[in-house]
Amino acid sequence: MLFRPSEKKIGVLGAGQLGKMLITETAHLDIELSFYDSDPNAPAAKHSRKFFCGDLMDKESVFDFGMDHDIITIEIEHVSVEALELLEQSGKQVYPQSHVLKMIQDKGLQKSFLDEHKIPTAPFFLCEDLKDILLLIEANKMNFPFVQKTRKGGYDGKGVQIIHNEQELNKLWDLPSVIERKADIEVEIAVIIARSVSGEIAVYPPVSMDFHPEANLVEWVVYPAEISEEIKERSLELAKQCAQRLNHVGLLAIEMFVNRDGSIWINEMAPRPHNSGHVSLNNGAVSQFENHIRAILDLPLGNAIGNLETIMINVLGEAGHEGIAVYNNLNQLLSDSHVHPFLYGKEKTKPYRKMGHINITGDHIKDIKSKAKWIKQTLQVISSKLG
Amino acid sequence: MLFRPSEKKIGVLGAGQLGKMLITETAHLDIELSFYDSDPNAPAAKHSRKFFCGDLMDKESVFDFGMDHDIITIEIEHVSVEALELLEQSGKQVYPQSHVLKMIQDKGLQKSFLDEHKIPTAPFFLCEDLKDILLLIEANKMNFPFVQKTRKGGYDGKGVQIIHNEQELNKLWDLPSVIERKADIEVEIAVIIARSVSGEIAVYPPVSMDFHPEANLVEWVVYPAEISEEIKERSLELAKQCAQRLNHVGLLAIEMFVNRDGSIWINEMAPRPHNSGHVSLNNGAVSQFENHIRAILDLPLGNAIGNLETIMINVLGEAGHEGIAVYNNLNQLLSDSHVHPFLYGKEKTKPYRKMGHINITGDHIKDIKSKAKWIKQTLQVISSKLG
Repeated sequence: MLFRPSEKKIGVLGAGQLGKMLITETAHLDIELSFYDSDPNAPAAKHSRKFFCGDLMDKESVFDFGMDHDIITIEIEHVSVEALELLEQSGKQVYPQSHVLKMIQDKGLQKSFLDEHKIPTAPFFLCEDLKDILLLIEANKMNFPFVQKTRKGGYDGKGVQIIHNEQELNKLWDLPSVIERKADIEVEIAVIIARSVSGEIAVYPPVSMDFHPEANLVEWVVYPAEISEEIKERSLELAKQCAQRLNHVGLLAIEMFVNRDGSIWINEMAPRPHNSGHVSLNNGAVSQFENHIRAILDLPLGNAIGNLETIMINVLGEAGHEGIAVYNNLNQLLSDSHVHPFLYGKEKTKPYRKMGHINITGDHIKDIKSKAKWIKQTLQVISSKLG
Repeated sequence: MLFRPSEKKIGVLGAGQLGKMLITETAHLDIELSFYDSDPNAPAAKHSRKFFCGDLMDKESVFDFGMDHDIITIEIEHVSVEALELLEQSGKQVYPQSHVLKMIQDKGLQKSFLDEHKIPTAPFFLCEDLKDILLLIEANKMNFPFVQKTRKGGYDGKGVQIIHNEQELNKLWDLPSVIERKADIEVEIAVIIARSVSGEIAVYPPVSMDFHPEANLVEWVVYPAEISEEIKERSLELAKQCAQRLNHVGLLAIEMFVNRDGSIWINEMAPRPHNSGHVSLNNGAVSQFENHIRAILDLPLGNAIGNLETIMINVLGEAGHEGIAVYNNLNQLLSDSHVHPFLYGKEKTKPYRKMGHINITGDHIKDIKSKAKWIKQTLQVISSKLG
């Protein structure tokens, strides 16, 4: 096979940290990426000579950007799907495909997709508004505690809440929602699958995730997940089903609940590199970012199975700090080559803003965990008047 | 310690593959680099939003570029030292310092420096021209075979030749030269040392190097070098001496001959990331590129000792091919996560042009070697009419 790196021009919608890591993880294959984002100082903008500033929901300018490229991909879901549909009609390669993105943008459609294909997920109802939800409760069709997820616009835990009892019903949002049974969770895991244009797949073994209680953000990812071989195999199988039923191209990250009764429910999907896949940057696998680009270029996929135990922690903006970001005690981490910090390059911090992540590798998960705890206590992102 | 990544603006002279890897290896610390090069399509230009086009030897425009930054560094030696001297006088931080670069640019000064500080190197004479050299031979002060190195302008094996006997004297260049005794080489090794502004050092253990017979380029680097512990220790000590005597800041790569009689001679130094240090990208150490930037920012240095056996091979343009570069059989390497290709992103190939390198890691050096041989037979950089 002959490979000429610049043969196909790749345009990326969004230029956040995921876009930045798409650059740094594929530059060694001489991949050049163009970016489109509303923020000219977005993380990926610093490392790209082809940056276009515009609104990701603006149909016309997203379409214009796409028409200058051969392949269009995303690093954020909130983009104009209409523009992507038009680009596909114009013969452009759009990965993930517009139909996938349309489904992902609406949690109601996501749930219906899973339901249709008999892929297990929490039992649910789709409700148009508050009135609809209250009728459901009144009719005893949904018991406490249950989960409300707004169909659109949620991300990083926003747009999701648990309603524990009758007293909390006044917290309900009057919005089109998914109302679903609260899972009885043993552990939350995620599986990421890469699927190439010609259908080759590579599956990243499951990681387990712990969430930050206040920020509702993943703050601790363990690779490999501490689950039984049987549950692992089932989770890999479910991930393959999702990608294949969608005829998906690129990365698909799938968050799953492993319930106390041993069942697995698909929670949510994201058709792009994912926070839970950052361990692949340092665990010996070919990273999720590289496999995403390989998949959309229809190059052979790389080994997704890392040989190093790894913990990823998110670096969140310190509570009470808002302004130009400054990193305190980073120097204390720099001499250890098992500690891999990734500062995303966001200019400003605010409480619980995702400012970076750190991968910690090692030989014994116990040692890695205590190192991870120490780092969480040590490294701080604070604001400063230096700027 | 508080760290604000963008506090100091760093300008890099040269935008070749070494510059490109400075970007990709430090983006995770939110380092942004600006580049200056005469080629607007140089490898690093693709991944930087701050690129300035100009002649590296043009005193005035190099000076102007430097004045827009706080720290000025290089990724190629052939730059205007006068501009760097002026920048230092204007209070800028220039690393490597102008006095180091001045010495490095002239192999005569390099040899004299080593001689002055009693650092072992091949016995030598400095000659002004051909006449001078012939007088030396006539007076039996230098026996065959000997080496001629032009004092200025040589790189990647250019400007160096061996004169084996009287018949070859007509090959001599009529240029200011170092004439030195040919070493009786057991193995060639290289040691890279990083030294920070405040004098902290990190030393990369020696690698051994094999050279391509026709191209006179390193084509095979083995980490760790297969040498005795005693020779290793001596080589590390010599590297430290060089860096300290120069009061050097940044990376200093030192090529050495280990002679059959057990002596070590310093061959040449380069005050920048070096081809022989590319193994550090994948052997588990903090890479030479990252330590260079840490050193000039006076951040703590990272661990230089990799825990994985690694072989690096250079990817050279195929003989007989000149034009737009296309990679044949790259796909065959992509499924193995122990094989790390680095395509530099040079648009055009020509015979023996350094187009990339590949790191191969593994558990047994014997297996790595056979894999490396297979890759050398498999991967080809050819030209194509595709462009």
